[in-house]
Amino acid sequence: MSKQIADIAMIGLAVMGQNFVLNMADHGFTVAAFDREADVVDKFIANDAIGKSIIGTHSVEEMVATLKRPRRVMLLIKAGKPVDSVIEQLVPLLEKDDIIIDGGNSHYLDTTRRYDFLKSKGIYFVGSGVSGGEEGARHGPSLMPGGAIEAWPAIKPIFLAVAAKADGEPCCDWVGPAGAGHYVKMVHNGIEYGDMQLISESYDLMKRLAGLSDKEISEVMGRWNQGFLDSFLIEVTRDILAFNDDGRIPLVEEIMDMAGQKGTGKWTAIDALDKGMPVTLIGQAVFSRCLSALKGERARASKVLSGPTIKPIPASVRKQFIDDLEQALYASKIISYAQGFMLIREAAKEFKWDLNFPSIPLMWRGGCIIRSAFLGEITKAYREDKYLENLLFHPFFRSAIEKAQSGWRKSVTKAVVNGIPTPAFATALSFYDDYKSERLPANLLQAQRDYFGAHTFSILPKYAHDKVKPGKNIHINWTGKGVDVSAGTYDA
Amino acid sequence: MSKQIADIAMIGLAVMGQNFVLNMADHGFTVAAFDREADVVDKFIANDAIGKSIIGTHSVEEMVATLKRPRRVMLLIKAGKPVDSVIEQLVPLLEKDDIIIDGGNSHYLDTTRRYDFLKSKGIYFVGSGVSGGEEGARHGPSLMPGGAIEAWPAIKPIFLAVAAKADGEPCCDWVGPAGAGHYVKMVHNGIEYGDMQLISESYDLMKRLAGLSDKEISEVMGRWNQGFLDSFLIEVTRDILAFNDDGRIPLVEEIMDMAGQKGTGKWTAIDALDKGMPVTLIGQAVFSRCLSALKGERARASKVLSGPTIKPIPASVRKQFIDDLEQALYASKIISYAQGFMLIREAAKEFKWDLNFPSIPLMWRGGCIIRSAFLGEITKAYREDKYLENLLFHPFFRSAIEKAQSGWRKSVTKAVVNGIPTPAFATALSFYDDYKSERLPANLLQAQRDYFGAHTFSILPKYAHDKVKPGKNIHINWTGKGVDVSAGTYDA
Repeated sequence: MSKQIADIAMIGLAVMGQNFVLNMADHGFTVAAFDREADVVDKFIANDAIGKSIIGTHSVEEMVATLKRPRRVMLLIKAGKPVDSVIEQLVPLLEKDDIIIDGGNSHYLDTTRRYDFLKSKGIYFVGSGVSGGEEGARHGPSLMPGGAIEAWPAIKPIFLAVAAKADGEPCCDWVGPAGAGHYVKMVHNGIEYGDMQLISESYDLMKRLAGLSDKEISEVMGRWNQGFLDSFLIEVTRDILAFNDDGRIPLVEEIMDMAGQKGTGKWTAIDALDKGMPVTLIGQAVFSRCLSALKGERARASKVLSGPTIKPIPASVRKQFIDDLEQALYASKIISYAQGFMLIREAAKEFKWDLNFPSIPLMWRGGCIIRSAFLGEITKAYREDKYLENLLFHPFFRSAIEKAQSGWRKSVTKAVVNGIPTPAFATALSFYDDYKSERLPANLLQAQRDYFGAHTFSILPKYAHDKVKPGKNIHINWTGKGVDVSAGTYDA
Repeated sequence: MSKQIADIAMIGLAVMGQNFVLNMADHGFTVAAFDREADVVDKFIANDAIGKSIIGTHSVEEMVATLKRPRRVMLLIKAGKPVDSVIEQLVPLLEKDDIIIDGGNSHYLDTTRRYDFLKSKGIYFVGSGVSGGEEGARHGPSLMPGGAIEAWPAIKPIFLAVAAKADGEPCCDWVGPAGAGHYVKMVHNGIEYGDMQLISESYDLMKRLAGLSDKEISEVMGRWNQGFLDSFLIEVTRDILAFNDDGRIPLVEEIMDMAGQKGTGKWTAIDALDKGMPVTLIGQAVFSRCLSALKGERARASKVLSGPTIKPIPASVRKQFIDDLEQALYASKIISYAQGFMLIREAAKEFKWDLNFPSIPLMWRGGCIIRSAFLGEITKAYREDKYLENLLFHPFFRSAIEKAQSGWRKSVTKAVVNGIPTPAFATALSFYDDYKSERLPANLLQAQRDYFGAHTFSILPKYAHDKVKPGKNIHINWTGKGVDVSAGTYDA
């Protein structure tokens, strides 16, 4: 039996798990590594783990026996049932104040359920978002831990050490109670869907409307990456568009245009619907992936459905077109993040989570897929005012949108006129125009609902009077001919 | 104890239930009426039910005892737990081949669960969509029954008699197995959300952009109701906008612009996300209601967020603007229904339901909230081809969209330029432009996913070769510098 020398154990040695273990070892921690496949453990120990403070173990019992107290056990395994069954295995082996960390892509409601269950056993459960893919896990991921705050002091030194650093700060902080860590990770993934969709629409417009080659679009992305759009995904796009392995056409043009998805974007959209928050951009991004997947149907539709003839952007105004597009992408991105934070705020309210708002964009600032300079600005905004009602109210973003607006409207208009789809740009713009409208046509909608379903309505405060108080639910008989119905009957 | 003389029993005597009972009695059926509140039963019997073939009963036992065999018991009660508890009460009182019909707004998955449970007890369960509100229930609802088809012969004479009639046909037919009836009702409700949102956007544009008064907009709605937009909701809107009870301003303008919702639109959007179907218009309509509900936040935003100065439509081109808008509404509506039927088709595939496609629009043709002339055209299309892949492929709708397109694009463009939100028009147009694109930028998205997450991609058939077969999942090392990577390494 090994001595109790390991600082932490890792269950699950797929690429993410192995890389996370190596990262921890690099920072001086001794890690007990376990996988249910014994040969995966052996291969890891005999290769990448050689000469490092990593102990291969071949049973959960053996793994637990190597751990110092309080025992820290991290899971990087497939979300769902596997997490529950590993937890069941662990519970009898652990003691009060020991810690289980789930670093997988678990649904936050599962995390909350597991948190409650393990609390009843005296074990601290932490659900942590881990983002940044294989590279991030190896050299610095974004980490979003939430759950039992009692466990934080014991986890903190390890997590802060291995996390990505941005502007000198670790991209990791305590998020909040129960499933808050996985919740924030879920919204992160939804925002990632949105960012990718926005970049794809920009690429499509430059290609189909301005006639740019992939190489030229790559150069544009390279320039954008020097400015306010500076971000990992723009950089990735620059590289992808320049990737031409056989010298004929860029590889990206050979790739099938059917988007896959693993479901966390969908979770965000569903959660937004459930919470009644208008997170339209992520919703649209998910639907756009669904529509792309209907490739055969689209191909058939393209043969029978007509559209306008595309009038290409003349070379003389190409620069202006690209500058407008940059603003359109930026403004839409601001809307998407504003919506994401609206959702997080609503969740905090619903679940009574005291969330660490400035830390959320900070955690996303580096290490993860959506990392960007922009997130530094969001961090600043929440540091100035952790109760900021909406990102759009902050002077920085308000003036950014103001500046971007003309280019944004022009880009969407050109797309509409030429029949090139920009669903995410357009939905972002609709949201902006809706959001800045004190008065929306929902009064008509309420009247319709009352007309056919007696669902009632209320009256605007300025029209309220003795018999019709503000907020009072009113039903009237709309078909009773206007002249016969006085305001008094609203009381009926 | 009463004799077994009742044709059917109704549990739940709220307005819908009472009206449905009266409707059945009017058509010669003897109905046993029950409500858990004894005085509700007594009041009903002593008033509206007087002189009709309606038997008041004061216990479920008494109610069941009045029924002929096979016993037919219909529920019009609150969806959720109440339905389960009434079913539990009924089961010991019923016998093999007896029938329970749930006419409430149950979620289709609950209906499927109850169907399975009651099947195991030898009882036939039918979940039926009932639409048309109080008026419909009284004088002819749209009925969408699904579940145990064995029960259909016993229900059919009653349902066909009481249902609305349109173009001489009852707006009721057998939908399909298990939860299919409630599924189709759910999609109906989602479409209703979409229709209402589209009408609201039209009203908003006429008001804010063309400066029309409510009376003028009411006249426009009246004209539209004579044409291809002929529908109950347009008619309702015409009446609402003309409703001016105190001679000052129309009542609709006094109504608070915060939309309520009962959740079935949300169910449709969530189901669409779950099934991977791009039902963007309903999704947007639900989100628009959510956003309208954030009235305080919008009011604050309206004071700090800028938009373009609205350039009103000059009176000289007002007619053209309104005609364009009519086309925009029509085209968007076609998209919404096409999406709704895409979702139903996907559900049929997923659940292996053999659905009666032509009957679905027929059932919606009359009696319900979305009833319209338009649904007659959809019925025709599915009667011509029950396997029609998409409504947009049918010549009628294809040419309608073709004709509508120019006005549709102009309306959206004007809205965008003037900063007036038209989220549903815009999302419908984006869908159309996406759907008719053989090639979408999802190739870039797949490349991004492979770049940062090794999610793999496949190659377009025309670029496939010996080493890279169509459909094969490929991962490459994008950062390995293009020149060093040949197609051969795709096999890695």
